[in-house]
Amino acid sequence: MMDLRYAVVGTGALGGFYGGKLAEAGKQVDFLFNSDYEQVKQQGLRVDSVSGDFLLKPVAAYNSTSSMPKADVVLVCLKTTNNGLLKSLLQPLLHENSVVILIQNGLGIEDELREMMPDIQIAGGLAFICSNKIGPGHIHHLDLGKLILGSYNLKDKSVLEKVGEDFKQAGVPCQIAEDLYFARWQKLVWNVPFNGLTVVLNSTTDRIMNVDSSRKLAHEMMYEVIDAANACGVSLKREFADKMIEMTAKMTPYAPSMKLDYDFKRPMEIDAIYSQPLQHAAKKGFKMEKVEVLEKQLRFYNSINGF
Amino acid sequence: MMDLRYAVVGTGALGGFYGGKLAEAGKQVDFLFNSDYEQVKQQGLRVDSVSGDFLLKPVAAYNSTSSMPKADVVLVCLKTTNNGLLKSLLQPLLHENSVVILIQNGLGIEDELREMMPDIQIAGGLAFICSNKIGPGHIHHLDLGKLILGSYNLKDKSVLEKVGEDFKQAGVPCQIAEDLYFARWQKLVWNVPFNGLTVVLNSTTDRIMNVDSSRKLAHEMMYEVIDAANACGVSLKREFADKMIEMTAKMTPYAPSMKLDYDFKRPMEIDAIYSQPLQHAAKKGFKMEKVEVLEKQLRFYNSINGF
Repeated sequence: MMDLRYAVVGTGALGGFYGGKLAEAGKQVDFLFNSDYEQVKQQGLRVDSVSGDFLLKPVAAYNSTSSMPKADVVLVCLKTTNNGLLKSLLQPLLHENSVVILIQNGLGIEDELREMMPDIQIAGGLAFICSNKIGPGHIHHLDLGKLILGSYNLKDKSVLEKVGEDFKQAGVPCQIAEDLYFARWQKLVWNVPFNGLTVVLNSTTDRIMNVDSSRKLAHEMMYEVIDAANACGVSLKREFADKMIEMTAKMTPYAPSMKLDYDFKRPMEIDAIYSQPLQHAAKKGFKMEKVEVLEKQLRFYNSINGF
Repeated sequence: MMDLRYAVVGTGALGGFYGGKLAEAGKQVDFLFNSDYEQVKQQGLRVDSVSGDFLLKPVAAYNSTSSMPKADVVLVCLKTTNNGLLKSLLQPLLHENSVVILIQNGLGIEDELREMMPDIQIAGGLAFICSNKIGPGHIHHLDLGKLILGSYNLKDKSVLEKVGEDFKQAGVPCQIAEDLYFARWQKLVWNVPFNGLTVVLNSTTDRIMNVDSSRKLAHEMMYEVIDAANACGVSLKREFADKMIEMTAKMTPYAPSMKLDYDFKRPMEIDAIYSQPLQHAAKKGFKMEKVEVLEKQLRFYNSINGF
């Protein structure tokens, strides 16, 4: 297989880090920027990372996908709240064998994309990372970093192996999941409690972990997500929640993306992270009582910002 | 029966209004003040009320119950978070036939007082009122005002009729409940959702009512309280929740006491309003899933203020 050409759609906390690492390692990566375009053109893309800072300059930066070269692998690192734009964004980037990897949280996003573009090849990506965009073209990577990739409807899954190799060469731990649906539920175990509770409790992960009642609530919500996953045919053990709680206790204090979205008055990813899992579980007759409370509270907070 | 002599223990949003109304109508009322004592001695007790403003001056004000006359009826209008002080506060006020009326929210508070003082006569009072203390000796009565009284262990319940008459003469609608436990659960139907959600959503009642998701959440929590009440042997219909929601929609925008307690960094009444009902229901095998989430979130918020 020839070298893969990458396109990063949405160069923020995730796209900036993962795309940046690939480019820094010499891979061919074209980046789509929105508001940061001019800044990055002039100043480059800056990544402050616990695993080593770097400045990417010059950057193959674009402010429209219609001016970008076609890509073998498109890494979609947008917020899911922008996924309605995907059809028009992706169309110019795709050749016959292009693969689109949705490095996003939540459930149902691949289904949604396939409905919009029935003929394209889709994979999913889960980022186990603490990373924030702290300014224009400026990413702060605080902790962790592992990427898990899984096929949704790839004709030839071996492309994921190649992508995985590229990430490993770039210093990013990367695994290929056998079952993307399993992986997405597994990721929700952490995301459901901590994305929402940091908003509703106006807090960071460390403070939630340091108070008995909120740590217990997060832990119980994790169990609820795991029970829902099992109702949906995904075999996940409750011990995984215990491990996630231990991991979070050791993690650097962190404001997840949803907390930043709320604070910066952006729409929160409530559909993909909350409503979709609630609906998937409900279809199987399982009611996520605690998560439903959080979902409704988040919709209230979203309404404060006008969404 | 001779005229009753009243003592108000805790002259805040409730004690100031209800005691103030009695005194304004010519009843004999002695008031215990804490931090507001000097101010009230000099300036009187001011009540701004939708049913008519008044200034009580002079006020039979005291800053210690040991200097107060003994009372026939003690109206306890403290926060339940101060109920640990009741034994020493009440002792000097009581004669052989004194009756203590706990005008407070929550469950289990009469049980707790009886454990502390097994020989005294106790009743409960439920205030359906929007009233806040907005400054020293300054009460703001925004809406509603009905008082429901019920015997807990009175030897002669007719004293409640007399108290009810006094309140009616003072322009306060007052009813005697057949079953205090029923009345306390009924009051929780409103208090559980709105006290906690105004804190966790940093909001007032009107904004919660104006957003679909939060109004629905409050409504569902009301149903959960009603289901719990029924599990505890209290026959309450779900339609009562529907009525409470309608009433709240018409109510003046309001920050319940718990919201003010949080904002002013006072301890919140989590035990009486949340933990006790949760425990009562759990003993009967009923789990209040949604309310439990809110209780844990409130404990987190309480911890922010150091409680």
